[in-house]
Amino acid sequence: MSIDARLRALPSAEILDQIRGVVGPKGVVAADAAVPYLTEWRRRWRGETPLIVVPASVEEVARIVAICASNGVAITPQGGNTGLVGGQIPFGSEVLLSMKRLNRIRDVSPLDNTLTVDAGVTLAEAQGAARDAKRLFPLSIGSEGSCQIGGVISTNAGGVNVLRYGNTRDLVLGLEAVLPSGEIWNGLKRLRKDNTGYDLKQLFIGGEGTLGVVTGAVLKLFPLPTEFVTVFAGVRDPSAAVTLLSLAQTATGGLASSFELLSRLCLDLVLAHIPSTRDPLDAPHPWYVLAEFSSGAAGLRETVETFLASALAKGLIEDAALAENQTQSKSFWRLRHSIAEAIAAEGAAAHHDVSVATADLPRFLMKADAAVAKLAPGARIPAFGHIGDGNVHYDVLPPKGAQRDALSPIEEAIEQRIYDVIAEFQGSISAEHGVGRQRKDDIAKRKSSVELSMMRAIKKALDPQGIMNPGKML
Amino acid sequence: MSIDARLRALPSAEILDQIRGVVGPKGVVAADAAVPYLTEWRRRWRGETPLIVVPASVEEVARIVAICASNGVAITPQGGNTGLVGGQIPFGSEVLLSMKRLNRIRDVSPLDNTLTVDAGVTLAEAQGAARDAKRLFPLSIGSEGSCQIGGVISTNAGGVNVLRYGNTRDLVLGLEAVLPSGEIWNGLKRLRKDNTGYDLKQLFIGGEGTLGVVTGAVLKLFPLPTEFVTVFAGVRDPSAAVTLLSLAQTATGGLASSFELLSRLCLDLVLAHIPSTRDPLDAPHPWYVLAEFSSGAAGLRETVETFLASALAKGLIEDAALAENQTQSKSFWRLRHSIAEAIAAEGAAAHHDVSVATADLPRFLMKADAAVAKLAPGARIPAFGHIGDGNVHYDVLPPKGAQRDALSPIEEAIEQRIYDVIAEFQGSISAEHGVGRQRKDDIAKRKSSVELSMMRAIKKALDPQGIMNPGKML
Repeated sequence: MSIDARLRALPSAEILDQIRGVVGPKGVVAADAAVPYLTEWRRRWRGETPLIVVPASVEEVARIVAICASNGVAITPQGGNTGLVGGQIPFGSEVLLSMKRLNRIRDVSPLDNTLTVDAGVTLAEAQGAARDAKRLFPLSIGSEGSCQIGGVISTNAGGVNVLRYGNTRDLVLGLEAVLPSGEIWNGLKRLRKDNTGYDLKQLFIGGEGTLGVVTGAVLKLFPLPTEFVTVFAGVRDPSAAVTLLSLAQTATGGLASSFELLSRLCLDLVLAHIPSTRDPLDAPHPWYVLAEFSSGAAGLRETVETFLASALAKGLIEDAALAENQTQSKSFWRLRHSIAEAIAAEGAAAHHDVSVATADLPRFLMKADAAVAKLAPGARIPAFGHIGDGNVHYDVLPPKGAQRDALSPIEEAIEQRIYDVIAEFQGSISAEHGVGRQRKDDIAKRKSSVELSMMRAIKKALDPQGIMNPGKML
Repeated sequence: MSIDARLRALPSAEILDQIRGVVGPKGVVAADAAVPYLTEWRRRWRGETPLIVVPASVEEVARIVAICASNGVAITPQGGNTGLVGGQIPFGSEVLLSMKRLNRIRDVSPLDNTLTVDAGVTLAEAQGAARDAKRLFPLSIGSEGSCQIGGVISTNAGGVNVLRYGNTRDLVLGLEAVLPSGEIWNGLKRLRKDNTGYDLKQLFIGGEGTLGVVTGAVLKLFPLPTEFVTVFAGVRDPSAAVTLLSLAQTATGGLASSFELLSRLCLDLVLAHIPSTRDPLDAPHPWYVLAEFSSGAAGLRETVETFLASALAKGLIEDAALAENQTQSKSFWRLRHSIAEAIAAEGAAAHHDVSVATADLPRFLMKADAAVAKLAPGARIPAFGHIGDGNVHYDVLPPKGAQRDALSPIEEAIEQRIYDVIAEFQGSISAEHGVGRQRKDDIAKRKSSVELSMMRAIKKALDPQGIMNPGKML
């Protein structure tokens, strides 16, 4: 296996010509058009590659991988190039395989609740195909307009509906992939039950392209909800929010699809930096919950109102606003979706995407805040996230009035201290975003040796030459 | 790897003494008490073993496996011995590892909706621990009183609530296992989101003990439903039943937890062989649907009644009865749960546990019926199953009036013909029950070579000596 992808030799001109021959002129990206493929969108990573190819079919992908396999040439698969950990950016010797021309909706079956798509279909297109068939594909993330299903699967994307519908892993019934040998594996089953051996697709889901190239998938669809209720509530502290979630799920029978937590600091930053935003509640509260409930049956609003009355009576919420219409619901959600932008406007923040068990979230926040305060007195922490999934986006901003980048010199120290606290709670240092380039060393340092050995054994078994996306994850 | 587990040499007396030393006298099963461990409950398979040990802790399991690993001794793990494909029965040289003394409920966290248990806890005990915490662990199968969580996980058990809550795979958050090296892997995470590498637990779920011994698990809990509605409806044909399911899910927002199909023949056999059963409907119908809806919110009965009125108006159901109370609901369910017993009372049937995509179910039944009729004119097929999962228990009985075992000589031919039809629909020849001993040769013959190669590569990578449950699955 390649220890360091940067040390690989470049493929010869003959091999590159063979690969070009597979896709023809339409499938080759010219050198002067390469920048968008080689630059991570926040400009954190810039890559190099001897060749960018854009195959138009699964068979072309297979032929390209076969040529690479025969010659020990490495490959980096790329979807919409929206990943946050650099998994999609090659180091230098890898052929870059863009999947964007594999963009067919292959089949929609409302009776089966399945949607079969090429890997290069965008998430928004998949959502739309489901909606056209009066079904819901519930996965929803910020980059849905441009991220592709292959990337979503390879990173096991999460998002705002995980509480009700699960991560991408829970939404995939079947998979098609080109293996590191160049063979096509057709696992495109539309079955809800199949106990005939190891569930191989699970290795490719969240596999970050290190075991093969995902080329197609069968996705699970759900009934389209017809009623929605959005609640914005002020709460005392994260502990009250966790108890509130439990009450909400019991009182509605699990109809919450999102349950988001944000601190007052988050709201303050949004109100300060994002135009036309306003606080939905009359008085300030230390923390807020933004919850969305949905149902296909009548009576949802009454059910949620009963729950809120009970929560008020129990002292779990200090105040709450129910969206009266879709416009108001959107304005509540805009507050939540603007947090990242508001933080960026305020200063250079260190970003962490961590998770713990939901019940541990309040204690994690206390311990992590204390740990950060020791290293960086006065640092501000606009914590927000998906409380139902125990997932916090834990960002650290310089003290008020300090330089934008005042914390840059100790950013790494802060990160490692936060990861130490995560370890105390047996949490995850990458809840949603993956490992890629960014957290490869952290994983190597922090995962148990038993687990790392199993991962390496699997990688070696399925990609003995180490040609698939080398230098990422492992 | 062992090609044939039956050809292995028996372990030496010294090695067996070392293993006995780990568990002490309490942990060794005497020869005269061995029969229940070595006999499959329907007496299809009888095994042999040099030693049955019953370890009392994860550490004891690890020490036993380490001794076996050092000496190339094979191991068969066993839970409640309720499996239907012989996966839990050793061939002759394997040490039999019974998990029944690992029976602690380790932790219940209602706020996290998690339940952490030892592998030897029975499914019924796990359900009970959840209920005591006012939560639901939704997995429900016929053997739940004696099957154990370790076995349930290793066979990825399904059952009657898969439509709403998924298979066992969907209900496991974390796993602890002893690896073929004797190392303990602690993957007991209670996280809803964790994208830090391959999701290793997926290999052990449905792995049939071929990659290690599952010793503990973190299970997902759900809000406890408070309202239940049970419907028994007569329908024209399976196609109407499939459309009815789609309408039910749309009209209730996905509140159906079970959606079972049975033919009139099934009901006739139950009414003939099972005492105190009666037809809930006034006139006979060609097919029936038994559906269960559940919710934690008020208004369920009205929602289901509205759905049924709409289904009647659309001609999707011919007649329907709603259970008025729990007793009546139980009497509806008794009809469904007695089918297997009634078929057994009628004659020796060939059993098949197959699945196709839900929308393909009607065409599969027609094609399979025609194929069986060609081989065995007059054979009777009491088909029933979980329509929402595309899963049919497709049994074949001799013609009326024929000898009980009239079909035995052509049973294998019938099975292969049914599997051929399943292949046409890209279905599964083992939807719920697994591979074990029984379907090992079928899998070898019918799976793609690409898929078999991947499975074998994983087995070899994680169990290079082939000591874990040899001769099963692969």
